[in-house]
Amino acid sequence: MTAPATPAAPADHQPSQGALRDFLGLLGYAGLGSFALLARDAARAPEIRTQLVFSRMAAGELAEIDYVEQLVMEHGGAFDQLLATYQDLLNDFMLRAVPRDWWERLMRSYVGYNLLQDLLRTLAEGLPAALRERTEASVGKSGHDDYVAALLAPVLAAEPQLASRLGLWGRRVVGESLTLVQRLFQEHPALVELTGGEGEPAARISHLVGQLQAEHSRRLQRLGLNA
Amino acid sequence: MTAPATPAAPADHQPSQGALRDFLGLLGYAGLGSFALLARDAARAPEIRTQLVFSRMAAGELAEIDYVEQLVMEHGGAFDQLLATYQDLLNDFMLRAVPRDWWERLMRSYVGYNLLQDLLRTLAEGLPAALRERTEASVGKSGHDDYVAALLAPVLAAEPQLASRLGLWGRRVVGESLTLVQRLFQEHPALVELTGGEGEPAARISHLVGQLQAEHSRRLQRLGLNA
Repeated sequence: MTAPATPAAPADHQPSQGALRDFLGLLGYAGLGSFALLARDAARAPEIRTQLVFSRMAAGELAEIDYVEQLVMEHGGAFDQLLATYQDLLNDFMLRAVPRDWWERLMRSYVGYNLLQDLLRTLAEGLPAALRERTEASVGKSGHDDYVAALLAPVLAAEPQLASRLGLWGRRVVGESLTLVQRLFQEHPALVELTGGEGEPAARISHLVGQLQAEHSRRLQRLGLNA
Repeated sequence: MTAPATPAAPADHQPSQGALRDFLGLLGYAGLGSFALLARDAARAPEIRTQLVFSRMAAGELAEIDYVEQLVMEHGGAFDQLLATYQDLLNDFMLRAVPRDWWERLMRSYVGYNLLQDLLRTLAEGLPAALRERTEASVGKSGHDDYVAALLAPVLAAEPQLASRLGLWGRRVVGESLTLVQRLFQEHPALVELTGGEGEPAARISHLVGQLQAEHSRRLQRLGLNA
């Protein structure tokens, strides 16, 4: 449950069973929670096309869940109980960032869902090769960021007042998201093993949060906004 | 847009382009609407396992939507506009039958979603062979009825008061559903071509509604309830 004393081997270091299990649980519930988030966005979409696109993306979030369940069973874990340990964390995101309209809803997922994808991708770097490759092949491949950026950028360019409101809202959503990332590591300390770098857990988490913020800033710039 | 004057050929009669197009639109929006219905059920599920099962079923509803979109394009139709003509109809179902708790929610989909599957399967009998076979291979294969019956039947057997309440609620849901079936044929009269039997549209629709009611009764009996 603590960071390895020796520097991690660069190519294919082996995280502990606890770290592996916690990652699989996170990956599984991230799929299920992202399904719920994107399906809800789809249901509120003002146009059939957007409803179709988000519904398909939501369905895609479940593409790997059977594989993840299988892996958990092979490691002797109980999939449902494991996923349940992440349920509050991800549900809190939806409860703490309730959008007031369609634009805030789009922005919420643009910020929060994509930050979760970045988090999974970064943690995957600490996994054994086979699982790392399979995770990297699926995480963050929905095209959600491109689709929403193409939808939002022209609207925000034309409506400075909306841009200003969504800028503030985006800051609030990323704040809530990063608070939940901190809580994730408090509740599942073994996950720290999967973060890159060395040193104390607090420093490693801090480094990771910095990376997530940088990715977030790049995403906001695509909308013509500052993070 | 009227029923054929000659009796339909038994093996592989050709419905009009209008009937075919209307069916494809219904099939497409049934997928999208069922996705929304089951995803919402999943989000309210009290247990992770039920959430997983309903989420997967919801995702499965979109399995054929790319194929349906392709077919509509081949027939020179505009998929989004076509689907939009069914949007109100299926959304009305959710608005007119708002469940008060998880059991009513389960029952709503058990009655309404499965009746829609029966409707699609019955209309598919009037399609050209290739499309009929492809439709029959996908429609009604989610296992939703078996899953919900296994979940509900023991609870209802143990709680007569809940059984009585859900019996009344089921009657209301099937009433709303069959009203919407009538409206479907009013708004898309070409679909009557796909109903079995002969005679005037009103008689054919009436016959179909009878079939749907019989299937519904069988489904309620599996719960130990009377329709």
